[in-house]
Amino acid sequence: MSYQHIETLSWLGGTDGTLRLIDQTLLPSEVKEIDCRNVETVWEAIKKLRVRGAPAIGISAAYGVITGMQTLPQDASLDAFKNRLNEVIAYLASSRPTAVNLFWALDRMKTKAGSLYGQKAVGGIAGALLGDLLDEAKAIHEEDRTTCRLIGKYGQSVIKDGDTFLTHCNAGGLATADYGTALALFFAAAESGKKISVYADETRPLLQGARLTAWELMQRGIDVTLICDSMAALVMRQGKINGVVVGADRIAANGDTANKIGTYSVAVNAKVHNVPFYVAAPVSTFDLTLPDGSLIPIEERLADEITNGFGKRTAPEGVKVYNPAFDVTPAELITGIITEHGIITPVNTDSVRKTVCRFLVE
Amino acid sequence: MSYQHIETLSWLGGTDGTLRLIDQTLLPSEVKEIDCRNVETVWEAIKKLRVRGAPAIGISAAYGVITGMQTLPQDASLDAFKNRLNEVIAYLASSRPTAVNLFWALDRMKTKAGSLYGQKAVGGIAGALLGDLLDEAKAIHEEDRTTCRLIGKYGQSVIKDGDTFLTHCNAGGLATADYGTALALFFAAAESGKKISVYADETRPLLQGARLTAWELMQRGIDVTLICDSMAALVMRQGKINGVVVGADRIAANGDTANKIGTYSVAVNAKVHNVPFYVAAPVSTFDLTLPDGSLIPIEERLADEITNGFGKRTAPEGVKVYNPAFDVTPAELITGIITEHGIITPVNTDSVRKTVCRFLVE
Repeated sequence: MSYQHIETLSWLGGTDGTLRLIDQTLLPSEVKEIDCRNVETVWEAIKKLRVRGAPAIGISAAYGVITGMQTLPQDASLDAFKNRLNEVIAYLASSRPTAVNLFWALDRMKTKAGSLYGQKAVGGIAGALLGDLLDEAKAIHEEDRTTCRLIGKYGQSVIKDGDTFLTHCNAGGLATADYGTALALFFAAAESGKKISVYADETRPLLQGARLTAWELMQRGIDVTLICDSMAALVMRQGKINGVVVGADRIAANGDTANKIGTYSVAVNAKVHNVPFYVAAPVSTFDLTLPDGSLIPIEERLADEITNGFGKRTAPEGVKVYNPAFDVTPAELITGIITEHGIITPVNTDSVRKTVCRFLVE
Repeated sequence: MSYQHIETLSWLGGTDGTLRLIDQTLLPSEVKEIDCRNVETVWEAIKKLRVRGAPAIGISAAYGVITGMQTLPQDASLDAFKNRLNEVIAYLASSRPTAVNLFWALDRMKTKAGSLYGQKAVGGIAGALLGDLLDEAKAIHEEDRTTCRLIGKYGQSVIKDGDTFLTHCNAGGLATADYGTALALFFAAAESGKKISVYADETRPLLQGARLTAWELMQRGIDVTLICDSMAALVMRQGKINGVVVGADRIAANGDTANKIGTYSVAVNAKVHNVPFYVAAPVSTFDLTLPDGSLIPIEERLADEITNGFGKRTAPEGVKVYNPAFDVTPAELITGIITEHGIITPVNTDSVRKTVCRFLVE
């Protein structure tokens, strides 16, 4: 299969343009792009997980600001511009309250606008301001692309020609501008001519591994085998796995890593079977205010995801369910954390500080 | 919730009676019993997994023989009886070629019939023979009940008042006459007045944990919490689990145990988190011809169970899938094997031989 490139998201046109997204809720049965022509459609796409993954949500929100400002006449006053911008940003911020990159991207758009206000003459300059804001959204988009490429570049050094890696959930192009974090390693390794194979955990309850990771790897012509989460230990015992790489939702100062539920079980099994276990994430994923992972709160989600996830009830009515959205893998189980500034290894408070501090304002 | 007893299977009436089964394919959304009035219906029930679990299949087949013989007139000749019996047994044996207890039960019915032929006058005694065969089927049924009760009795000693145990798949009343093997420990502990709680792995791909184990425990008023398989490691790390107990499909001479896929991952995590890990199974589960578990073949099942298991496609068309039906947990991860003749611990070739040899003909 040849590599068929499909953009997770893209901006079509100039300041009067539209945001085009793959509707990820329809994957893998249907590959359908939707064009968001107004801020309400962008809001809905984020809310309903048509676009998902912290970086991709951030980029979408930045472009969403542009769609929201398009309702303003070209010759609107600066005050009208400011008011509308605040309104649009507050609206987009209400789409998903927990996605950190959403607020980060909206803050960045707001800061950019603030820096422009002083430089422009008052009155009739909405069009000019909007052009500069679109440039900022494009910069956020482009920087994420660069970050992912760098993670791929550094990360692929841990993959040897002929290796088979295992991954959990989806930390791929669909969660970022286009190249992913964990999956970036596979893409970069393949591009550098290495032959690689991947086992993808299906990742219950929402099956991001089955629906998204398997699909992305097949799109890029990378050999992928889908397994249930409970089979990861067996394939490791069978000696089939040379390494594991996963993404991250939040990383504490000592390297303890919160990621999709099930990651911890994979890490324990990797340790027991002497399989290297890597985390791939941009430095913006680190939360240096938390000394260790025990301080990362574990969000619980609705029982319905487990009891009724496939359009068919598969558990007794009224059954008690525990559905944590993620778990924390302690630093001692992590061989290395792959960032856009290099690989942190061994993983501990000192090594994290050395790589991360200079790039993060605490 | 008070304990609502529903028989997995039961025989209604005398030699002209019927086999009543819970249709397990409809659980947990519907609790429906079906009456098998002829051998074709019994065959279909086994084939389509309306009744499942090796002991329950064996008992059903034994009763199925009776339903098959009912087409014979009361005054049929001995030759006619013999011919029909061979026909019925061959037919039932074709329902599921891999279920060992099916052949064991049918062999036992055939042996019983053979022992009767010499004792009866020739001609017009089909009715009398059938009565004796029904007694044999009832004996098989009753013995399984006794075996499960003994496993419960010995096994519940490893559960303390207030304990929380974790189990994987369904080794409950639905897989046996009525009390189960792994779940027998919980039933017996509860009956002896201990307060217990259970975490049930949903058990992908076929969700026997979500569909059957959660349902059985709720029926008996035992506190049960459903989790995804990938969450077992987390709840162990959180200190919530005092012990694990699972069933078995085949146990090698050294105690290595084949059981439902995912059992091995649970066992590894139990070891790492210092949680005792028990197997509960009758001695008939031991295969002493195999020195260790590496010789147990791992059956692979259809990709469809993973990609399309709940009436909705959840993975890309054409994706490669690895779907082993079970895995092997090495003896060194097993704290004890609970049989109807006591608990084997520590688990090794010597201890297995001591408990099992005198009850098994190799």
